Amino acid sequence: MAFLKVVPLEKAIKVIESFNFEPKVERVPLGDALGRVLAEDVVSPIDVPPFDRATVDGYAVRAQDTFMASESQPVKLKIVGEINAGDTPSVQPKEGEAVYISTGAPLPESADAVIQFEDVEREGDTVIIYKPAYPGLGVMKAGTDIPKGKLLLKRGTRLGFKETALLSAVGLSEVPVFRKPRVAVISTGNEIVLPGEELRPGKIYDINGRAITDAVRELGGEGVFLGIARDDRDSLKNLILKGLECCDIVLLSGGASGGIRDLTSSIIEELGRVYIHGIAIQPGKPTIIGEINGKPIFGLPGYPTSCLTNFTLLVAPLLRKLIGREAEIRKVKKRLAHKVFSVKGRRQFLPVRIEGEKAVPILKGSGAVTSFVDADGFIEVPETVEILEAGEEVEVTLFG
Amino acid sequence: MAFLKVVPLEKAIKVIESFNFEPKVERVPLGDALGRVLAEDVVSPIDVPPFDRATVDGYAVRAQDTFMASESQPVKLKIVGEINAGDTPSVQPKEGEAVYISTGAPLPESADAVIQFEDVEREGDTVIIYKPAYPGLGVMKAGTDIPKGKLLLKRGTRLGFKETALLSAVGLSEVPVFRKPRVAVISTGNEIVLPGEELRPGKIYDINGRAITDAVRELGGEGVFLGIARDDRDSLKNLILKGLECCDIVLLSGGASGGIRDLTSSIIEELGRVYIHGIAIQPGKPTIIGEINGKPIFGLPGYPTSCLTNFTLLVAPLLRKLIGREAEIRKVKKRLAHKVFSVKGRRQFLPVRIEGEKAVPILKGSGAVTSFVDADGFIEVPETVEILEAGEEVEVTLFG
Repeated sequence: MAFLKVVPLEKAIKVIESFNFEPKVERVPLGDALGRVLAEDVVSPIDVPPFDRATVDGYAVRAQDTFMASESQPVKLKIVGEINAGDTPSVQPKEGEAVYISTGAPLPESADAVIQFEDVEREGDTVIIYKPAYPGLGVMKAGTDIPKGKLLLKRGTRLGFKETALLSAVGLSEVPVFRKPRVAVISTGNEIVLPGEELRPGKIYDINGRAITDAVRELGGEGVFLGIARDDRDSLKNLILKGLECCDIVLLSGGASGGIRDLTSSIIEELGRVYIHGIAIQPGKPTIIGEINGKPIFGLPGYPTSCLTNFTLLVAPLLRKLIGREAEIRKVKKRLAHKVFSVKGRRQFLPVRIEGEKAVPILKGSGAVTSFVDADGFIEVPETVEILEAGEEVEVTLFG
Repeated sequence: MAFLKVVPLEKAIKVIESFNFEPKVERVPLGDALGRVLAEDVVSPIDVPPFDRATVDGYAVRAQDTFMASESQPVKLKIVGEINAGDTPSVQPKEGEAVYISTGAPLPESADAVIQFEDVEREGDTVIIYKPAYPGLGVMKAGTDIPKGKLLLKRGTRLGFKETALLSAVGLSEVPVFRKPRVAVISTGNEIVLPGEELRPGKIYDINGRAITDAVRELGGEGVFLGIARDDRDSLKNLILKGLECCDIVLLSGGASGGIRDLTSSIIEELGRVYIHGIAIQPGKPTIIGEINGKPIFGLPGYPTSCLTNFTLLVAPLLRKLIGREAEIRKVKKRLAHKVFSVKGRRQFLPVRIEGEKAVPILKGSGAVTSFVDADGFIEVPETVEILEAGEEVEVTLFG
């Protein structure tokens, strides 16, 4: 087995933070923007509505012409035209005139109010008005909904359907969003086979490849599962090279054997640089962090829960930074459901399930698949702590 | 204007529930299953692990051979072979023998324990054991993690990365999921143009088309935005026919004018049947529900907030049923942030924003885009109520 220069977790996090790796921006059609994260502040390029707009079906008038109207002394105005929604106003009511107008149609410039049908009577070309209209009645002024230049959405906003609708409302057909980082995922180990393949004696089905690929996708990255590298130099090196070719980041999850970690480390040394080989945490000591041609490469532990814990601690923050979601809170405070024991001198991350206000420790051991399936995240037990009591407040880091 | 046979909301909901429309199932590759909803219970077809598995690097032994071992009287066993992860065990240790075994490798049948390297010494072909091993030490028995036949995931489960990983662990390469209902979305109105198009006088940009298409997608359906129908029979009929061709459901959102609603209704009558034309709620009275060749068709109001409210009340439950997510809770109880007035005799749905435990009414009027962008959902104010007091408990239905 290769020697491990075990370092504290904080050192590993510093190394990752120092990767010279900035979020990239791309422009996508609005129709493909749902779920993406905005890469720039968006300011409205127009007034909404873009013109003074009738909010009822009725007659556009000059309000002053109606000021004297009453039940006993109605005002009569001559109907001189008609404007429907979508029309350009081609007729301007002058003194004593009105224009038939429909909801959503632009108000003629010479008018300043719309009196709805229900409040008037019509006789041929004449509309009979029984009470005064005030300027602005039945009108939504240009820009009252969204004024031109207003900050609509901030950089870092995840675009849901309300946000895409808002961008549509101001006429933006393309949106600047963070490019999805492409992440190559490789499982390693002679014992691993892919679902659908025959399970010969001694083999088990891949778990980490699927888990990590889909965790990357849920985070908003593009997970590209490259399959399984066998426990030999050529197989592993070929897949790493393939990953470097197609992706921005390469993630390997270790097989059960220690040998493959040494192979991984030696291939990274050959092609680039290994920064970290071993982190002083439990589970997941045998973690590798390196860089090849400016692309980060991670070797994660083989046991599913360890793999996912280390992915959450090390890789997810980098992905969130690249996707513009670094501000997201992924920790919740809960009370421990029952006592747990740890080993003094060992910094341990323990999977827990959240049940209401409680964090329920899952003690199946990191080898079990079901321990990470049942878990929502993990808590940290520092080196100096041997016992955490039931009811104690703990901070749960959510997986992913 | 056409006459509206206004019916209560409950009648409209009954009509929708009576659509003879069952969720459809399709099988997708596991790699595409993330985010989909499981259409059948899944039971594990295998034991996980599929064999008794070494959980440490060490020596596979017959535990009984070590029962007499002590610091002063160590037991010496002959190393007769090696099994690595992924190997088929080709060697069976007999009495007095041990086999070198790595983590994850299958335990030979004749052995029942694995003693880790750290606890033994090796001298040439001999391993020296200083303390007894018990049967099961260093071994995970077949099926202890997941026994064959165990119910893994229930119908209706949304597949996150933990679930896809679990399906991978049991070797399933295809997954039965609910087919995404295809929903055609059409905006109507002469005044509407698409983002990116020139905004000539009297025109406004589409809001509802984008909002509804993306709301369908967030719900897990396939939203297909067909664009804008002009306020004439041919344009509208063509797009409706196109929608019926490509999709399972057709959604129209009305332009501002009343005329287009009558056109829509008359085209549906021609091609199929109109069940509802007008619902006694505010906003969104002018809602149409019909059916053409077994496909539901909805005409939703034009004002964005009304459109989204009616989508939430009428269309979303149908989509959730088709996607297998009908059990989802979309209502939350909050306290009203300030007093609101309603009109007696009018059943009103009022947009609100959620702030902590408070529901803040948004009183901009349904014509404003920003009123639905700022809102998280709506509350109902029954016909009999004129005033809701600040602090009163209200049930907020979340949009979508």
